[in-house]
Amino acid sequence: MIEQPASPFFLDCDTGIDDALALAYLLAAPNAELVGIGTVSGNISAAGGARNTLDLLQLAGHQDIPVAVGAHDPLVGSFRGGAPHVHGANGIGEVELPTSNRETVSESAAELLVRLANQYAGELRVVLIGPLTNIAQALRLEPKLPELIAEITIMGGAASAPGNITAVAEANIANDPEAAAEVLAADWDVTLVPLDVTMTNVLEEGHRQELLATDHPMAQALGGMLGYYFGFYVNQFGRACSAMHDPLAAAIAVGGIEVAIAPIVHVEVDTTDGPGRGQTVCDLRGLYMGFPEQPGARCRVVLSLAEEFAPHLLETLQSDWFPEAAAQSVSTLDQEEAVLSGR
Amino acid sequence: MIEQPASPFFLDCDTGIDDALALAYLLAAPNAELVGIGTVSGNISAAGGARNTLDLLQLAGHQDIPVAVGAHDPLVGSFRGGAPHVHGANGIGEVELPTSNRETVSESAAELLVRLANQYAGELRVVLIGPLTNIAQALRLEPKLPELIAEITIMGGAASAPGNITAVAEANIANDPEAAAEVLAADWDVTLVPLDVTMTNVLEEGHRQELLATDHPMAQALGGMLGYYFGFYVNQFGRACSAMHDPLAAAIAVGGIEVAIAPIVHVEVDTTDGPGRGQTVCDLRGLYMGFPEQPGARCRVVLSLAEEFAPHLLETLQSDWFPEAAAQSVSTLDQEEAVLSGR
Repeated sequence: MIEQPASPFFLDCDTGIDDALALAYLLAAPNAELVGIGTVSGNISAAGGARNTLDLLQLAGHQDIPVAVGAHDPLVGSFRGGAPHVHGANGIGEVELPTSNRETVSESAAELLVRLANQYAGELRVVLIGPLTNIAQALRLEPKLPELIAEITIMGGAASAPGNITAVAEANIANDPEAAAEVLAADWDVTLVPLDVTMTNVLEEGHRQELLATDHPMAQALGGMLGYYFGFYVNQFGRACSAMHDPLAAAIAVGGIEVAIAPIVHVEVDTTDGPGRGQTVCDLRGLYMGFPEQPGARCRVVLSLAEEFAPHLLETLQSDWFPEAAAQSVSTLDQEEAVLSGR
Repeated sequence: MIEQPASPFFLDCDTGIDDALALAYLLAAPNAELVGIGTVSGNISAAGGARNTLDLLQLAGHQDIPVAVGAHDPLVGSFRGGAPHVHGANGIGEVELPTSNRETVSESAAELLVRLANQYAGELRVVLIGPLTNIAQALRLEPKLPELIAEITIMGGAASAPGNITAVAEANIANDPEAAAEVLAADWDVTLVPLDVTMTNVLEEGHRQELLATDHPMAQALGGMLGYYFGFYVNQFGRACSAMHDPLAAAIAVGGIEVAIAPIVHVEVDTTDGPGRGQTVCDLRGLYMGFPEQPGARCRVVLSLAEEFAPHLLETLQSDWFPEAAAQSVSTLDQEEAVLSGR
């Protein structure tokens, strides 16, 4: 039987440049142990995202983490081809990584998530940084999922900030509003990391140069990808920099960064065909009163941070996280202790 | 033939405490000449709003301005009974005004608006501070209305601020989303004064006391009404104060207050039955770039002011605006010249 690390994490992603950063962050974070990864179509197809994820894991020396391909299409409709203008045709900013010879597991992402949720019952933390199709499917596969999972953190939505796909809809939610609606209506507490906080905590060109100058291939690959990403965001911000959507969600999930304003409010996903389709309708009417408690509300919406994110992200990505070849096997009791003591 | 004043204004309202303040502001503003008023169901029924308006006009000594009752019901559905918890059962905070013996005109509000738009062709400015049913009806009556009207200012909607009826919908728009959609899609430039700016520019108890201490019955009546209004808003702000929705729209329409951030953007009204129904979906995606031009956009959305509103409002309401009995007749050329010179 596999030893369970202190904080097992499941990552569901559509890798993606900022997904790659989130993946690297979770591998490097001292108090997280990635035990499984699912992919979903979003920035790129689910299969393409899995390929990128396997290659990134090899680059990072983490050949032990199972990767499962998830949903190619959203619950309703079809995958529309991703965002090559943002992430490049290969999803990782045209950076060429050494090809991993590892394959994805035979389970679907939803099946892998359900299996790990049972294996790490009550302990598994889930970070969702793509469309929410896989976890919606997992909820259908295993209705007890809310009891099994310790914590859900979602990068997605826009509360009072503008959307990035439509005036009010953010890409992860807009790519599968029906799935998002099911996930946010399920019987669990959720942390939502929306554009309100990801668009206001950016990585600058100086940070990217630091990554490029760091002496390990993962940091350098991330720096390369960010060059492409910055090229998209220069039209959003007017300078070479970029939002840090996915790594911020990972950092909040891990507890690596402190949030400031993060009210627990009612959130409903717009699944109509109107101009609000894909919007996370967050009830922020308590704004002027410091957000008094909303009975029955279960979604913590992160609106601002208590500290700067970029220095923390850089520090984590530059830390001595790149594992020795010997440490590539499944974790042992010794490693678990190392995790607990903040290796 | 009636002499046309320099800046003829038509007010469409659902009087309403803040409507009463807007009415008083427009009567007092040196560069506005109210030439007609329509009422619509909103804070109170269209008929009840007309009664309040006639009584307020008498109190102010303006017996010359025609008041027309407008739509009782929205374009779709029925009037739901107003907001007595905000404005009192009589719409004006249970303040008892002397009853005017004047009657409303026989035209509907839409008919009056169309007639005045033709009479003051190219000059009439319209301030809309209730649901947009009347002007939507006027657009149907007179398809050339956009050519006839000089300027449209609407108190309504929420851009990035929370709604006040639902999480995202503001009352004026939510009470008739279909009308709002028609009005915002019509062939004219519109200024929208949403909750973003009306909820952040409030009147405090000290201001109310100043009104109560002012030596004319209109100011005192407004101060009395505000006591009721503050009672509602204490649960929104945590102190005795209130938003200044309608008078702010009037002040912006008149040019009495300078705006700061007011991008011209695409705005779509959500007319679905989803959670976004009644939302003014404003495309603020240019936020991070200082709102670059959006080709084809025609809605100026006021997000912030360049100066404090409360002092300007107080000063205007306390100014020597209460007309002499002799000045109650329709304006003359002399008065027009006085208006032009900023009487």
